[in-house]
Amino acid sequence: MKPLSKYVDHTTLKPFGTKEMVEQFCAAAIANDFASVCINPCDIALAKSLLAGTDIKVCTVIGFPLGRNLTAIKVAETEAAYELGCDEFDMVINVGKLKDREYDYVRDEIAAVVKAAKGRLVKVIIETGLLTDEEKVIATKLSCEAGAGYVKTCSGVSAGVATVEDVALMKANCTNGVKVKASSGIRCYEDAKKLIDAGAERLGTSAGIVILEGAKAAGDL
Amino acid sequence: MKPLSKYVDHTTLKPFGTKEMVEQFCAAAIANDFASVCINPCDIALAKSLLAGTDIKVCTVIGFPLGRNLTAIKVAETEAAYELGCDEFDMVINVGKLKDREYDYVRDEIAAVVKAAKGRLVKVIIETGLLTDEEKVIATKLSCEAGAGYVKTCSGVSAGVATVEDVALMKANCTNGVKVKASSGIRCYEDAKKLIDAGAERLGTSAGIVILEGAKAAGDL
Repeated sequence: MKPLSKYVDHTTLKPFGTKEMVEQFCAAAIANDFASVCINPCDIALAKSLLAGTDIKVCTVIGFPLGRNLTAIKVAETEAAYELGCDEFDMVINVGKLKDREYDYVRDEIAAVVKAAKGRLVKVIIETGLLTDEEKVIATKLSCEAGAGYVKTCSGVSAGVATVEDVALMKANCTNGVKVKASSGIRCYEDAKKLIDAGAERLGTSAGIVILEGAKAAGDL
Repeated sequence: MKPLSKYVDHTTLKPFGTKEMVEQFCAAAIANDFASVCINPCDIALAKSLLAGTDIKVCTVIGFPLGRNLTAIKVAETEAAYELGCDEFDMVINVGKLKDREYDYVRDEIAAVVKAAKGRLVKVIIETGLLTDEEKVIATKLSCEAGAGYVKTCSGVSAGVATVEDVALMKANCTNGVKVKASSGIRCYEDAKKLIDAGAERLGTSAGIVILEGAKAAGDL
């Protein structure tokens, strides 16, 4: 099992992030040896320079948080982030199209982003808080078919938080080695531990430092 | 003074909009003769076809709601929406860059979107709920310098709602004939009337029908 810190995608996606906030954020990622920083596209270049020489990945978001932009734009966002050196891409599916049962549209859109990522990691946010269990299973399967590396629970902006039940359901329906990322509402070590026990291999959270402190206090780190 | 209905940008920007929801939404816009429908980019083509032959505009959002994507992507979003026939573009500024006092960046980005809109209307969402009064004034002036048609209060996703004070402050600082759009938290005729009295010439709201009913009940319509 990898160290707990390497489960954490250290995440800040605020509209008001300043340069100083991004600098402090990346310093914390280094100090705590997180898996990645998950940041807005306009901060990729700065984060890449701050994290140079570490193994901490830079992750950004695509079609975030509504997922209702055009496929061509999701592709353009991925290509532009790739050119800036971004390592990982967390994309939001088009939930409305899923509810309209336009499964080819949803799958093809994920595949187009995967193609634009040219082998780098794509995580697919299915927005569990907006879906029925049947839709969660379908979205997971479409993501696996389209070449995603992870399926991910929530954007954290729309309704819903990561639950043990959803992580387990998604994991049970993953094929092709696809993993599960839990995100939204993960505020302490107890939350993190339950989700990891349910099968999550990444956690999207702004509480990574609190989680590590909780693990130390519990004698687990 | 134009009819009250023509103040309303009838707005739905949910992640889970289905085709049926967009159809009902556009039918309501026609029945109530609103100024526009404000919808996600993937719904532009459908809305254009549903509103053909009416004077109701199709409006979409750019860089929405975080405003922290790359300028090149905001431009690409505008160009793609333009090609689909979109009439109006509500863009979110990069609030973090404003707070970093990168005023050239903020102004140039607005100007780039205005250029991509090729004469069609651009409304600039400054996110009043995240700004100091000084920042609200600066954002308003930058928008006017960059060729915007409107400055707009809020995305409705981040903190903040339209207030009479903010509308008045923005209006007092508009030049070049730029107008003010109030948005977020406008739920009834009383809200709408106060904001119009303060100088708003458009209202971004999902409560347009309730607002018109309130005006009738008050004997104002």
